[in-house]
Amino acid sequence: MFDYLRDPQEIYAKSFATIEAEADLARFSDDQRPVAIRIIHACGMVEIADQIAFGGDVIANATDALRNRKPILCDAEMVRHGIISRLLPAENPVLCTLNDGDTHGLARQMGTTRSAAAVEAWADHIEGAIIAIGNAPTALFHLLDAIHHGRMAKPAAIIGMPVGFVGARESKDALIEYAGDVPFITLRGRFGGSAVTAATVNALARLAR
Amino acid sequence: MFDYLRDPQEIYAKSFATIEAEADLARFSDDQRPVAIRIIHACGMVEIADQIAFGGDVIANATDALRNRKPILCDAEMVRHGIISRLLPAENPVLCTLNDGDTHGLARQMGTTRSAAAVEAWADHIEGAIIAIGNAPTALFHLLDAIHHGRMAKPAAIIGMPVGFVGARESKDALIEYAGDVPFITLRGRFGGSAVTAATVNALARLAR
Repeated sequence: MFDYLRDPQEIYAKSFATIEAEADLARFSDDQRPVAIRIIHACGMVEIADQIAFGGDVIANATDALRNRKPILCDAEMVRHGIISRLLPAENPVLCTLNDGDTHGLARQMGTTRSAAAVEAWADHIEGAIIAIGNAPTALFHLLDAIHHGRMAKPAAIIGMPVGFVGARESKDALIEYAGDVPFITLRGRFGGSAVTAATVNALARLAR
Repeated sequence: MFDYLRDPQEIYAKSFATIEAEADLARFSDDQRPVAIRIIHACGMVEIADQIAFGGDVIANATDALRNRKPILCDAEMVRHGIISRLLPAENPVLCTLNDGDTHGLARQMGTTRSAAAVEAWADHIEGAIIAIGNAPTALFHLLDAIHHGRMAKPAAIIGMPVGFVGARESKDALIEYAGDVPFITLRGRFGGSAVTAATVNALARLAR
């Protein structure tokens, strides 16, 4: 009834050819380029290329961390479930502490969101880890504050792509300005989300293999 | 260190106030409006309002189906994990058949993608169900074809929001043109994804309670 492309390999090839033809990728280095392409692929928007920001030697740092079996810490279950386990080079643990038993009470006690409170439970895993924040601006703010004040160790890389109308843009601007020597990947502006965040992790995992 | 809004209720209120102020919602009916707002909220893009299309009496049909404990059939695990169980009015089953044992072999045999092959396993659950497609254009094409030819019963509603550069726009245009008397919600164009799809289901669930 419908005439459409059904072969997975052809679909991927045509998708990436369209991105190469339409997106402005000139400013990306050779190692950043495949990550940028996967971000664009995940959201179907070539214009998002202009919003992608890489900080520090993030590709090398993140791929080393993945090879060294460092965990991936996610702010949301959707991010966790978007990460493709079989791509990970060392069966890396993928953790989301949002629904841990005490985040609700802790959030109330701290006067913040459950997403921000859930970051506290990252303390034991964060050194050299990959951070994947694809939902909550408050999680990213809380993390930056904890690292800046030395309350938490430094991760290998922060993928910070929260989405929304309150704090998303501001938390990503804060990441760019205050990450210090922690490498990062982000998307400027309101857009972000679990799909682009998971796609970034998956792209890094492919590079790490 | 950072000055940002931490109270969840205030964050929601300010988010929705921003959407009301910036998005053009005039063309939506009273029952469509909260769904449109949640879609915009999930992606941080007020301009997506122009791409939202409702077909048939989709809000009434979908909320009735949810109250009647009909299942929600998802094309991707990210969609499934974006649906908030506690919002569902009747502990509705949320199914994703993508990683069922035989989808890979079935896809090869059928000469299509695994996402399209996974739709075949919906046959026993689809009558009166809610469909939530947030990833694969081939799943939406395959489903429309199966319904059109009477190989599958009719669902109560199709939420069809696949994303990407190959077939996404076309499959959603096909949904609008060939859904027949099956009500639907879609986003015209390349953009879509698991977050907006799950947000649509969650919005319908809130209306059904």
